[in-house]
Amino acid sequence: MSVTAPQGFRASGVTAGIKASGTPDLALVVNDGPDHHAAAVFTSNRVEAAPVTWSRQAALDGRVAAVVLNSGGANACTGPQGFADTHATAEKVAAVLDLSSHDVVVCSTGLIGELLPMDKVLSGVESAATALSTDGGTDAAVAIKTTDTVHKVAVAEGDGWSVGGMAKGAGMLAPALATMLVVVTTDAVVEAGALDGVLRSATALTFDRVDSDGCQSTNDTVVLLASGASGVPVGAEQLTAAVTEVCASLARQLVADAEGAHHDIAIEVRTAASEADALEVARSVARNNLFKCAVFGNDPNWGRVLAAVGTTAAAFDPSALDVSINGVEVCRAGGVGEDRNLVDLTPREVHVVVDLHAGTDTATIWTNDLTHDYVHENSAYSS
Amino acid sequence: MSVTAPQGFRASGVTAGIKASGTPDLALVVNDGPDHHAAAVFTSNRVEAAPVTWSRQAALDGRVAAVVLNSGGANACTGPQGFADTHATAEKVAAVLDLSSHDVVVCSTGLIGELLPMDKVLSGVESAATALSTDGGTDAAVAIKTTDTVHKVAVAEGDGWSVGGMAKGAGMLAPALATMLVVVTTDAVVEAGALDGVLRSATALTFDRVDSDGCQSTNDTVVLLASGASGVPVGAEQLTAAVTEVCASLARQLVADAEGAHHDIAIEVRTAASEADALEVARSVARNNLFKCAVFGNDPNWGRVLAAVGTTAAAFDPSALDVSINGVEVCRAGGVGEDRNLVDLTPREVHVVVDLHAGTDTATIWTNDLTHDYVHENSAYSS
Repeated sequence: MSVTAPQGFRASGVTAGIKASGTPDLALVVNDGPDHHAAAVFTSNRVEAAPVTWSRQAALDGRVAAVVLNSGGANACTGPQGFADTHATAEKVAAVLDLSSHDVVVCSTGLIGELLPMDKVLSGVESAATALSTDGGTDAAVAIKTTDTVHKVAVAEGDGWSVGGMAKGAGMLAPALATMLVVVTTDAVVEAGALDGVLRSATALTFDRVDSDGCQSTNDTVVLLASGASGVPVGAEQLTAAVTEVCASLARQLVADAEGAHHDIAIEVRTAASEADALEVARSVARNNLFKCAVFGNDPNWGRVLAAVGTTAAAFDPSALDVSINGVEVCRAGGVGEDRNLVDLTPREVHVVVDLHAGTDTATIWTNDLTHDYVHENSAYSS
Repeated sequence: MSVTAPQGFRASGVTAGIKASGTPDLALVVNDGPDHHAAAVFTSNRVEAAPVTWSRQAALDGRVAAVVLNSGGANACTGPQGFADTHATAEKVAAVLDLSSHDVVVCSTGLIGELLPMDKVLSGVESAATALSTDGGTDAAVAIKTTDTVHKVAVAEGDGWSVGGMAKGAGMLAPALATMLVVVTTDAVVEAGALDGVLRSATALTFDRVDSDGCQSTNDTVVLLASGASGVPVGAEQLTAAVTEVCASLARQLVADAEGAHHDIAIEVRTAASEADALEVARSVARNNLFKCAVFGNDPNWGRVLAAVGTTAAAFDPSALDVSINGVEVCRAGGVGEDRNLVDLTPREVHVVVDLHAGTDTATIWTNDLTHDYVHENSAYSS
């Protein structure tokens, strides 16, 4: 049910003809209220796409009535014309839905450096508005796919209220955030001022901890919309838990569908002096191409884990490091531990644990292996 | 002629049996004086191999009489036994050459996390000592290869003096330094105290600007030895120029032989506010897996260059960025420039120029594309 699981939302997904493939490529999500509270977080990439520039402003007042999303083009690095195109898209949505364009968030995904075919986008908005439905969540989730092999949706149920979400993203996944577009909806009655904190808490523990390939996108957007349509007041803490649950599910689905990946790898760093240290070490391992290639080859090459740990500024004594891979402690006290041949890397899920023995903090980063298929997909993407 | 091009040096390379392949795997370089001045720089990886720990101490007094190098095993993450093995290797070299072990630098390269077969290493040292010759430079350069497809040597000629060098390295190339072992020799008569500055100046502009795959090794070592055997006094500036020339040639050879690479990519950042900014931006592009895959696919996907630039803290205005690839200005003022189809990426050498329009500084980082062959070589290395 995706974003239309909570009450007060309609959605749709249509084929506007932006993608050459002829598959659905334009989605619309509308909050019918009574509340129109919203919060949003965006890529921290300084080269940001036109829709990100627009949507930062649109969401700044905490009020969003509709989100329009297109696949088939990122509208990034497209200069003043690109921004004008985003603006025109928001105006079109506002006109057909009788809203203010300043309450419309715009999201785009696809190739960087190409202008969008605006005639198709604008007529697509009309079709999408006509197709809006309270069970259109799945159609919307399908229409935002690029190289995604599956659409990603999640729902968390409260007592008389719920949270729903959809996401796209299959590569260029790195903080903050992963390359992805995410819309999360709730019908909880919630204070307008609380939503930003709810969303930031949820993304910090979920999307910000996915690092598929270390590459940060120009278009990342996560929007949270609250309609209040359930009539059930929900506290910030309870809502944060539910939104985090939905975001965690979507984040995990992004990793599972990362371009060309054969393994999903959890890098768990334990006994760190701080959470920041644990994150730095986990991210360094997650970005080590040599280790990621080894996992693809089902090779528990723990020396590459230590080499990655050694490049960080985290507190640790190299001669105290332990590393286990899928339960086998292959490195003990910085040296050779259990027989590496005992490690079974055939399952898709890989669990690497690094013990720093420097404190009590812990953090996990999710990443993927580096495969022939990743190289293939990303060497042929724009051609 | 490699390291034996300058007078006062002998070298050898033998098959000690450390490598399963039965190819040469142990090299020895001896400085016969009259001077035994030396300088060395090592990996900044905090997880450093036993030979690095040993050699840092051995070179600290600026005096080195011999360098022993083995391929077939990195002796990294091998605990107290690994350090004892390095120590025993230095003692063996000292014994057979009648030196102090504290004047022996030890270098190892190969798989991390395995102990060396010390019986083979020690008998190999004996064979290598017997084989020492004033024209053994090539043999030594061959014996330090791991996945290198060719051996790497370079010579710079002065007036009555010279500088020679050899290097191994074919992956895990990142600062500081690239994964590599390098020995550079000179017969110039030079002040002992000047050598450290000479070497650091040379490596800062050469090896530190190679970033093949963003992965930093545990074993990197660059040693500069001065014999004074030419009898020709040479100033620090003149020697720096010659050592830089040799290091630049070796660094370029490392890039050209990087594991599985199909393209050598120079990322030149111009009009930066500082050299540090230029380096940060160039390195960010050099480490972007998506861009590196695109180059492999002969796809001038400049959006990925901008996405990488945008993740840095360098001074620039995103709407002022220009990017050219092999002479075609595909991105102008942060937007679409010349037709990307004009770019010819079929040659091995690729030249990317990023103009930040924020100052007058410039820097270039050399990297490689990300290919099927890279994934293949590095998914099967330890098995």
